[in-house]
Amino acid sequence: VLVVACLNPAVDVTLTVDRLCPGESHRARMSMQRAGGKGVNVAHVLHQLGVPVVLTGFVGGPRGAAVGAGLDPGLRAQFVDVGDETRQTVTIVDAAGAATVVNEPGPAVTVEEWARFVDTFGALLREADAVVLSGSLPRGVPSDAYAQLTRAAHAAGRTALVDAAGEALRAALDAEPDLVKPNEDEAAPFGTDGSAVDGLVAAGARNAVVSRGARGLAARVGEHRYDVTLARPVTGNPTGAGDALAAGLARGLSTTDGWPAILREATALAAAAVAVPYAGAIDLAVLDQVRPLVQVREV
Amino acid sequence: VLVVACLNPAVDVTLTVDRLCPGESHRARMSMQRAGGKGVNVAHVLHQLGVPVVLTGFVGGPRGAAVGAGLDPGLRAQFVDVGDETRQTVTIVDAAGAATVVNEPGPAVTVEEWARFVDTFGALLREADAVVLSGSLPRGVPSDAYAQLTRAAHAAGRTALVDAAGEALRAALDAEPDLVKPNEDEAAPFGTDGSAVDGLVAAGARNAVVSRGARGLAARVGEHRYDVTLARPVTGNPTGAGDALAAGLARGLSTTDGWPAILREATALAAAAVAVPYAGAIDLAVLDQVRPLVQVREV
Repeated sequence: VLVVACLNPAVDVTLTVDRLCPGESHRARMSMQRAGGKGVNVAHVLHQLGVPVVLTGFVGGPRGAAVGAGLDPGLRAQFVDVGDETRQTVTIVDAAGAATVVNEPGPAVTVEEWARFVDTFGALLREADAVVLSGSLPRGVPSDAYAQLTRAAHAAGRTALVDAAGEALRAALDAEPDLVKPNEDEAAPFGTDGSAVDGLVAAGARNAVVSRGARGLAARVGEHRYDVTLARPVTGNPTGAGDALAAGLARGLSTTDGWPAILREATALAAAAVAVPYAGAIDLAVLDQVRPLVQVREV
Repeated sequence: VLVVACLNPAVDVTLTVDRLCPGESHRARMSMQRAGGKGVNVAHVLHQLGVPVVLTGFVGGPRGAAVGAGLDPGLRAQFVDVGDETRQTVTIVDAAGAATVVNEPGPAVTVEEWARFVDTFGALLREADAVVLSGSLPRGVPSDAYAQLTRAAHAAGRTALVDAAGEALRAALDAEPDLVKPNEDEAAPFGTDGSAVDGLVAAGARNAVVSRGARGLAARVGEHRYDVTLARPVTGNPTGAGDALAAGLARGLSTTDGWPAILREATALAAAAVAVPYAGAIDLAVLDQVRPLVQVREV
């Protein structure tokens, strides 16, 4: 089973209005609600692909209950309850499709709650094939949280994929995660373009993939470097594409497929996520169409 | 005890951003959450004034739980659970204080759930001094819901105050509610300026008050007409002023105070609500200051 840690899940609320006018009052034509947060999206994609997965993280308050209720049916979750309330993301979509997003900071986690999470994660490691640590850290969690969890995974003989940014990513590298996958903005402190993957490896990552939107991926795996591109871009909603990529890479890590095959499939998954208007799901028909369009080139 | 029916309560979420830019992504500096909806605001103000009150209505899902959790401590509530989820109102406030509001439609209520509410309301009537029926009707509730509840109140010998708009107000008038209190926009179908109160009484209301923002109130009580004004306007957030007015009128209805005193105190309460930046609360210091500023004139 793949253990996916989403320390700061969210209730993703999408409100549809004709036109958003700052300073005015609007009646939403439609309101949709779904469990979100990067790790939740990763778990959803893995679950959709039929990969056994268990999702963990912190939930609190009525919104925490809404996260649990908003998971796809059958997705296994083992959350740690916190006293503070789970965050919400509000996306207001107008008739032209423009999306205005307001993200909340998320709950404050206590030292005791973090300790309980470490215990829960440790118990899940026993049955894990690999772990995915994905998304932002809630307040109160140590900034080296991903390093601590990566070390726990390694001590149990499991591989760890870290999808994080900023200080959470930098601190994680100390624990030599098996794979990191920032996007090019998040990887910028480690280098630009092709050099970012080398910078990430130099800083501690065993392997590194940097996603570059419609320009595909740069990968550094062991001593090999790959450029992965899509012959024809997929149009749609790029939100969640990075999480589908993480799902594909995590699944690949627990197979005996070689890196070119892993990178190819993960890129196709990311493209198939763009075809879905919300995060945490892929379009399986598009997946079949884009697989032959992925080009993996050693550089 | 005053029974306040809020059939469509809400979770009121206020997100603070520097500047709201449509089409862009924002990080909220602050997020506040409070139980809302007109009837909830009325009950909160009555509770703050020390008036025994019981709040009823429909709640559902995690957001329904958030409404329960978001009530002021000690406020008695007896809600009917529904299968659909309670609505949310999202208010995005920028650094200049401009408020952008998106309201959700609210849950759909089934015939069985409405019947359960009628039973609950009937049981509460036994201990009621008066009832307040306030705010919009959720989908699925009959459009003459307030007429049905007003008739039930009258059959039990209780007075009923209706604060509604549109079809809900129009249908309520058939049951001859003891008092209605639309604002001037809501009262416009019944007449403009001074004639609106007469139109409401002609359509069935036993007494009528029309609020006119900073211009005060027009009232028609029995054969008397009053103009109520404030010598000096209070600046602040007018959201919730109408609900404080309803709370003041409802409290007055269950006293032996004459109408001029009732109108005076209710107007002062509305002004004291403007001084508070959110709905469902009054500033008690401002209340003392504005009482002498209220002018009640028979016209």
